[in-house]
Amino acid sequence: MQYYVDGFRGGDPDVRNAAPNRRERGPHAPLPEKVDVLIVGTGPAGLCLAAQLAQFPEIDTMIVESSPCNIEKGKADGINTRTMEMFQAFGFADKVKRESYWVNQTAFWRPDPANPAHIKRIGRVQDVADDSSEMPHILINQARLHQLFLDVMKNAPARLEVDYNLALKDLTIDPSTEDHPVAVVLEDTGVNWGETTTIRANYVVGCEGARSKVRKAIGGKLHGDAAHQAWGVMDILANTDFPDVRQKCLITSAHEGNILILPREGGYLFRMYVELDKLNEDERVAERGFTQDDMIAAANRIMQPYTIDVKEVVWWSIYEIGHRLTDKFDDVPEGEQATRMPRVFTAGDACHTHSPKAGQGMNVSMQDTFNLGWKLAHVFQGRADASLLHSYSAERWLEAKRLVDTDHEWARIMSAPPGGSDLDGGDEPRFVRQFKENLEFTGGLAVKYDRSTLIGAPTHQALAAGEEIGRRFHSAPVVRLADAKQMQLGHAAEADGRWRIYAFAGAGDNGAEGGAIASLANWLENDAASPVVKYTRKDEDIDGLIDLRAVFQQTFDQLAYENMPRLLKPAKGKLGLQDHEKVFCVDHKGLGDIFEIRGIDRDRGCMIVVRPDQYIAHVLPLDGYAELAGLFDGFLLPAGR
Amino acid sequence: MQYYVDGFRGGDPDVRNAAPNRRERGPHAPLPEKVDVLIVGTGPAGLCLAAQLAQFPEIDTMIVESSPCNIEKGKADGINTRTMEMFQAFGFADKVKRESYWVNQTAFWRPDPANPAHIKRIGRVQDVADDSSEMPHILINQARLHQLFLDVMKNAPARLEVDYNLALKDLTIDPSTEDHPVAVVLEDTGVNWGETTTIRANYVVGCEGARSKVRKAIGGKLHGDAAHQAWGVMDILANTDFPDVRQKCLITSAHEGNILILPREGGYLFRMYVELDKLNEDERVAERGFTQDDMIAAANRIMQPYTIDVKEVVWWSIYEIGHRLTDKFDDVPEGEQATRMPRVFTAGDACHTHSPKAGQGMNVSMQDTFNLGWKLAHVFQGRADASLLHSYSAERWLEAKRLVDTDHEWARIMSAPPGGSDLDGGDEPRFVRQFKENLEFTGGLAVKYDRSTLIGAPTHQALAAGEEIGRRFHSAPVVRLADAKQMQLGHAAEADGRWRIYAFAGAGDNGAEGGAIASLANWLENDAASPVVKYTRKDEDIDGLIDLRAVFQQTFDQLAYENMPRLLKPAKGKLGLQDHEKVFCVDHKGLGDIFEIRGIDRDRGCMIVVRPDQYIAHVLPLDGYAELAGLFDGFLLPAGR
Ligand SMILES: Cc1cc2nc3c(=O)[nH]c(=O)nc-3n(C[C@H](O)[C@H](O)[C@H](O)COP(=O)(O)OP(=O)(O)OC[C@H]3O[C@@H](n4cnc5c(N)ncnc54)[C@H](O)[C@@H]3O)c2cc1C
Ligand SMILES: Cc1cc2nc3c(=O)[nH]c(=O)nc-3n(C[C@H](O)[C@H](O)[C@H](O)COP(=O)(O)OP(=O)(O)OC[C@H]3O[C@@H](n4cnc5c(N)ncnc54)[C@H](O)[C@@H]3O)c2cc1C
Repeated sequence: MQYYVDGFRGGDPDVRNAAPNRRERGPHAPLPEKVDVLIVGTGPAGLCLAAQLAQFPEIDTMIVESSPCNIEKGKADGINTRTMEMFQAFGFADKVKRESYWVNQTAFWRPDPANPAHIKRIGRVQDVADDSSEMPHILINQARLHQLFLDVMKNAPARLEVDYNLALKDLTIDPSTEDHPVAVVLEDTGVNWGETTTIRANYVVGCEGARSKVRKAIGGKLHGDAAHQAWGVMDILANTDFPDVRQKCLITSAHEGNILILPREGGYLFRMYVELDKLNEDERVAERGFTQDDMIAAANRIMQPYTIDVKEVVWWSIYEIGHRLTDKFDDVPEGEQATRMPRVFTAGDACHTHSPKAGQGMNVSMQDTFNLGWKLAHVFQGRADASLLHSYSAERWLEAKRLVDTDHEWARIMSAPPGGSDLDGGDEPRFVRQFKENLEFTGGLAVKYDRSTLIGAPTHQALAAGEEIGRRFHSAPVVRLADAKQMQLGHAAEADGRWRIYAFAGAGDNGAEGGAIASLANWLENDAASPVVKYTRKDEDIDGLIDLRAVFQQTFDQLAYENMPRLLKPAKGKLGLQDHEKVFCVDHKGLGDIFEIRGIDRDRGCMIVVRPDQYIAHVLPLDGYAELAGLFDGFLLPAGR
Repeated sequence: MQYYVDGFRGGDPDVRNAAPNRRERGPHAPLPEKVDVLIVGTGPAGLCLAAQLAQFPEIDTMIVESSPCNIEKGKADGINTRTMEMFQAFGFADKVKRESYWVNQTAFWRPDPANPAHIKRIGRVQDVADDSSEMPHILINQARLHQLFLDVMKNAPARLEVDYNLALKDLTIDPSTEDHPVAVVLEDTGVNWGETTTIRANYVVGCEGARSKVRKAIGGKLHGDAAHQAWGVMDILANTDFPDVRQKCLITSAHEGNILILPREGGYLFRMYVELDKLNEDERVAERGFTQDDMIAAANRIMQPYTIDVKEVVWWSIYEIGHRLTDKFDDVPEGEQATRMPRVFTAGDACHTHSPKAGQGMNVSMQDTFNLGWKLAHVFQGRADASLLHSYSAERWLEAKRLVDTDHEWARIMSAPPGGSDLDGGDEPRFVRQFKENLEFTGGLAVKYDRSTLIGAPTHQALAAGEEIGRRFHSAPVVRLADAKQMQLGHAAEADGRWRIYAFAGAGDNGAEGGAIASLANWLENDAASPVVKYTRKDEDIDGLIDLRAVFQQTFDQLAYENMPRLLKPAKGKLGLQDHEKVFCVDHKGLGDIFEIRGIDRDRGCMIVVRPDQYIAHVLPLDGYAELAGLFDGFLLPAGR
């Protein structure tokens, strides 16, 4: 964690220096007439975007919420490994790791062949495959995550806070102007109930969940399952003789239906999902009248011979959801991309919904806005043309589509009646096999963006076999040269809207003048064609847009820090202080060699170019200067310094 | 991390439920007339004690400080691994790990034999030996640690806060009463400057640093070096071509003196200590007039051929200190222990001071009060007789004495003039060898309490060769059975004043009825002679005083949780919820087998009894019921339930 670059300031380092001239947000302060970005809704999608934009105080962001305050409980609870990697960049992964339940194993229970009225454990699967991510898969109250994002917003330079009790009522786009073309009518849902205000925004992002008015205003429709699937969901404090109550369990009874058990934070709480359409006919009919007692009774029947003794029902709900998807995540009609730039976006449940069975809803919502955030920032900072914003819908829609399809497939397999067909051929029941195959997917790790201006061609992919272009940069252990600290290379990246180039040295290169790393660093620092030279603004640090890091094949004691090229120890901040955290070497304490683990070409080394949202834009040879320049030239605007 | 045992409550789980009837601490609220414990001073010693006592709202604790607020910078910065283990128990080790600088390597620089006017690196030593602790050795601003303790106090059930602007002026003990016998005169140092108030306390703990008035009031005198050693110390933001500026460095120049470099939190800041009595004669004479510029100049001379370009001096000071020690850490004169119980204690710099060279001052100060805290709590809770309090001075004085002696020895070796004698015999310079030998000591890991009522005889030590009676419980990796989570066994312990019994199962024992673990659990739960039966209060959880945990030799998938005895899954809290976190097994993912790592007897297993301050009170066979009972009978009072 780096801080004090602009001088010492005591206290909590997560509280960043505030930018000047922030809007007063007291209860009697007026609302602004115009904002740069208006975010509607404070679910995971909206908060993740707000936390990202709050890092850029030059963007005037407003986030409104129709409720009077943050939720306290309920809703989703699953955070996959990919989202945890993103939390690491936001700085609160450690906190989440400490407080949350870790899904280490998933257990499968089915009718006992010897006595089908009873369930029996038929298998267990390690939930996070070794080295699929350095992060755990965790479960925690959605409200708590909201709070962690709210803390990031509040502590960021923009000191961003939510304007509660304001509901979006209407939205119109004025095509005749480029100056705050979106007019939004907000309705007070608090003390001045019903009062409306119109605010003009340059961009509006609808993160208001499945009933999104923003989606409707831009003509979006959700397609997919006509019939919603209904789940009874219940967070409880309870005792039970069921031995796996602290493991994630998929339980299928012979005749009483299915249940999903998700242990939760704090060691006592757990969640049960009962699939309501799997219950008996009469219960399904009475769905609307289904009570918490019905649900507890159903659970007790499904889990025979075990029983559950509920001490406190923390939250419960009938959660009805279909796998649905809208056609596009922005307001530009298909075919008009060349002439019209997006002004309004939807994200999260506003444009796609998923069954809770795969635990994806909250995760993809945040990944949506993590994709959008840096792009908006680039446009506002004048770094990129507004056409960059087309890529949001293009990239995220395809992912949502893949997710809906996989969700469907999984639901179909899970719904197959228990019995002999479970074991069609192999030793493992079919759905256990499928569950394992899905793990990378449910971990959020299978996301792969297609080739585009932001994602290069796989010409040189072989230089880094384990770091696939279009997928997220897969972290691995390294040691930082300057202080011999063991760390994860991926944790060098923060949610700061910057690009990273990880330059992996070829064999023998020790950073000294003449080697490929030094040559790359010198070219990046000095050449007129270099993206660092062309696109870094005069008023920012030399790594303000593109952050070069180097990884060597030696261990720390075999390298001389003093030999490293200047761009790897740049002077930064108000005081011009030297940054010592850009050079890494191979771990010497048994955690493995990153070159080997990630299949980096030992002879030639390579560059891995990583986007601000942690996705790999390109893999290039260390002297692939022209291709590197070409990538950035494809979407950046010269800084004109 | 366990929470919600008394029912769900949203928000930050580190904020514990508040106890009722807390004193109002607003600026116009009156001071109390009587308190149970009065702590004087908010350095590390005082705050660690306050954070511990705040967990027990039944103890009315007050902590006063003559300054108007927490410090912002300066003072000590080194936290050794042992203290980090303690921070883990207080819940903020993860935060510290994230924010701080980790000392991974210490580098030694000496005059270059080829050119003695220049320094040269002669070696590097790994700072924390493998498996000496699961924690790093870290450096961080003392003020920040104060804040983390203040947060723990504020979030604890007692919601304890400091009463600032109150200085202890005088202290007298009234031997004629047992009811709040200590009278303390407090002087206002704030708006009502000079106004005095007298408060009566049952116990007073003087944590007011080297000029302690509490020490003087109980007749304590510091003995030791008459001549104070003077250090110039400076926290700076600076650039340098010295390549090891992000490693801890001991630098000895040929003629210009010595310097100690300590990199600090945030990646840019570092501390320099210049030993002033090693400077040239004229500088030493002018010591009092020594300025920050003199110090920077001295550093630049010592570090030739390297230079330092200072951008900001964050803090600097001349820190004068001797190795000094008082005779006793409480008010009971030698020989009167049988008839008189302690009422007043001193802790930290108030009773012993150390050179900063070994980085001990802040650490031992906290270890002092961590030792005292649970004992005071036991006495207040009526669990133990007041005579338990004698053990504080007995245990901690001896440790302080050992520390002062080692400090002396190290200072002598460090001060030997550089030259040929460095290499007397071995390959390594003598002081490098000594530095390595001292590592366990400087890590705070060598502390070993002598046999006493609280520390058993080593009769059965061989059952756990790597867990020495009298030393701190040395954590190792395990997997929690209920949820298959990889964790450190030692992290089961919190700073909650409870005792832990870690029962290591013999080969083949799987927890089932008839095995040694089940028999022990049943005996502990039911036998009239069991300390759990005798000493647990009616109104508390069955593990409220003694917390049994079991560790099995199998991996998680080879054990059946349902077979575990009742005491290992007790019902707890208001709702009677089952605790699932007491059974552990051997790590199955390559981190090693705790039985092997810690030399636990595989055939017989054993019990390791650990005190609330993490020190090992006893190692016993699993059927050593009588000895176990004997240990607790030695100092506990029957709960009479
Ligand atoms: C009642 C409920 C129960 C759920 N239960 C589960 C579950 O059991 N398991 C699971 O995996 N997922 C569950 N989900 C879904 C999961 O919470 C979502 O996938 C996830 O929160 C999506 O995040 P989001 O930010 O897109 O939208 P949301 O989290 O839905 O956030 C939308 C926000 O916008 C606000 N809002 C709505 N309309 C307006 C308006 N006009 N103006 C201003 N603000 C507005 C809402 O108050 C809300 O705060 C549940 C969702 C809901 C609503
Ligand atoms: C100026 C200074 C510089 C130091 N520099 C270093 C260093 O460079 N390296 C290093 O290793 N260690 C240094 N130390 C020592 C290190 O800080 C101590 O070892 C450590 O703080 C000991 O903790 P403590 O709680 O025992 O006492 P302290 O941290 O000294 O805390 C004592 C507290 O009591 C308060 N107090 C004093 N008298 C009264 C009174 N009568 N009534 C109420 N409150 C009172 C003080 O204001 C202070 O807050 C320094 C200490 C000081 C004071």
